Amino acid sequence: METARPLDALNKARNHRVIVELKNGKQYVGELKAFDIHINIVLDEAEERVNGEVKRKLGSIFIRGDTIIMISTE
Amino acid sequence: METARPLDALNKARNHRVIVELKNGKQYVGELKAFDIHINIVLDEAEERVNGEVKRKLGSIFIRGDTIIMISTE
Amino acid sequence: METARPLDALNKARNHRVIVELKNGKQYVGELKAFDIHINIVLDEAEERVNGEVKRKLGSIFIRGDTIIMISTE
Amino acid sequence: METARPLDALNKARNHRVIVELKNGKQYVGELKAFDIHINIVLDEAEERVNGEVKRKLGSIFIRGDTIIMISTE
Amino acid sequence: METARPLDALNKARNHRVIVELKNGKQYVGELKAFDIHINIVLDEAEERVNGEVKRKLGSIFIRGDTIIMISTE
Amino acid sequence: METARPLDALNKARNHRVIVELKNGKQYVGELKAFDIHINIVLDEAEERVNGEVKRKLGSIFIRGDTIIMISTE
Amino acid sequence: METARPLDALNKARNHRVIVELKNGKQYVGELKAFDIHINIVLDEAEERVNGEVKRKLGSIFIRGDTIIMISTE
Repeated sequence: METARPLDALNKARNHRVIVELKNGKQYVGELKAFDIHINIVLDEAEERVNGEVKRKLGSIFIRGDTIIMISTE
Repeated sequence: METARPLDALNKARNHRVIVELKNGKQYVGELKAFDIHINIVLDEAEERVNGEVKRKLGSIFIRGDTIIMISTE
Repeated sequence: METARPLDALNKARNHRVIVELKNGKQYVGELKAFDIHINIVLDEAEERVNGEVKRKLGSIFIRGDTIIMISTE
Repeated sequence: METARPLDALNKARNHRVIVELKNGKQYVGELKAFDIHINIVLDEAEERVNGEVKRKLGSIFIRGDTIIMISTE
Repeated sequence: METARPLDALNKARNHRVIVELKNGKQYVGELKAFDIHINIVLDEAEERVNGEVKRKLGSIFIRGDTIIMISTE
Repeated sequence: METARPLDALNKARNHRVIVELKNGKQYVGELKAFDIHINIVLDEAEERVNGEVKRKLGSIFIRGDTIIMISTE
Repeated sequence: METARPLDALNKARNHRVIVELKNGKQYVGELKAFDIHINIVLDEAEERVNGEVKRKLGSIFIRGDTIIMISTE
């Protein structure tokens, strides 16, 4: 993710698995399919993880951007 | 929900049953009838669920976007 | 409330009794008289309810949109 | 307050005594003299009330809109 | 402060001592020297008060608008 | 800081040492080098203080405006 | 970071290691690769630190700007 603008970095992560950490402490892992300037994102084959363990399998999910703290690549 | 923009993904979920998780920990399940750029949404035949059990049947509901964490398809 | 945009759904609820749930846990019931894009709303013959029981009768009230979680029809 | 837009309802309440409930649980009562689209408001002869009893007399006060939950007429 | 717009009321309070109550429960008293549409304000000869007693003398201070609940004249 | 607009007051404080109080209760002291309309600021030779005592020396720091409550001159 | 605008200061820190402190109390350290006006940032070779000790190695991360309190150079 060596780019001038943060959204370029997200663009490079598209179609790769990412870890999304939310303000409520939950963690979602899935393939990044879409995002916008609000950092609303869509993950495919998403899982909810707690302390590194899979808690729920969720399929395709939409996450509202203002709940997100950090996105990293797996 | 394989699309370039997150709202396209919501558009594909239109008329399907979705699970909406709110910042206050509540979960609403219903048929997605409408949404806008703020992620305000309208669900039909909506139910409030707690720990996977139906707590209340609500009919048609409007949910304000800034209270939403995640939307997944059932 | 079968419409393409969430505010259309609120428009159909105009002059009907609605239940408004706020972020602070309170519930207001009244006839929906007005709303705007911020979801600021005006209810007539409004009541504050706690656990389904009427706690206060309030007449006409203005509710600021950013305090609202959900609006349903009674 | 039977009007199409919420701010019209506030306009009708101008120069009448209103009750303003804030997110911090406090309640201010006074004559509504001014408001704007952010719901910033000015009350004259304002009082702070707790559990229906007058706690402080405040004269003219400016309340920032984003702290307001609800405005009702006394 | 009998005016049509809330900021006109603040303008009349300019150069007078005002009491500013913040969301964190603190109270600042000082001469209102400047404000803007965000309700960012500058007070001169400002004091921090707790329960009506002066806790700190602060000189000239800038307060960010989104932390303010209420402004009243002393 | 006797000026008509709050940002003019910050401009006069440029290159002087200021005390910045944050919403999380922390206090940063340093030379004000830059600010913008969001009240994002840059301090040079910054220190973190707790109860008036220096806790950490930080060099040059960027503080995001929406975390700031108050800025005063030392 | 001696500049007129806060974002110029961030620009000078580009490609240098910075410490980012978040509202949730966590601290991320890494090479600043990108930022935008919302202070969304991308760090390379990022680490999560707690009380000065490395807790997790994260690689390249995107941090949403509204979760950030402070950015300092290491």
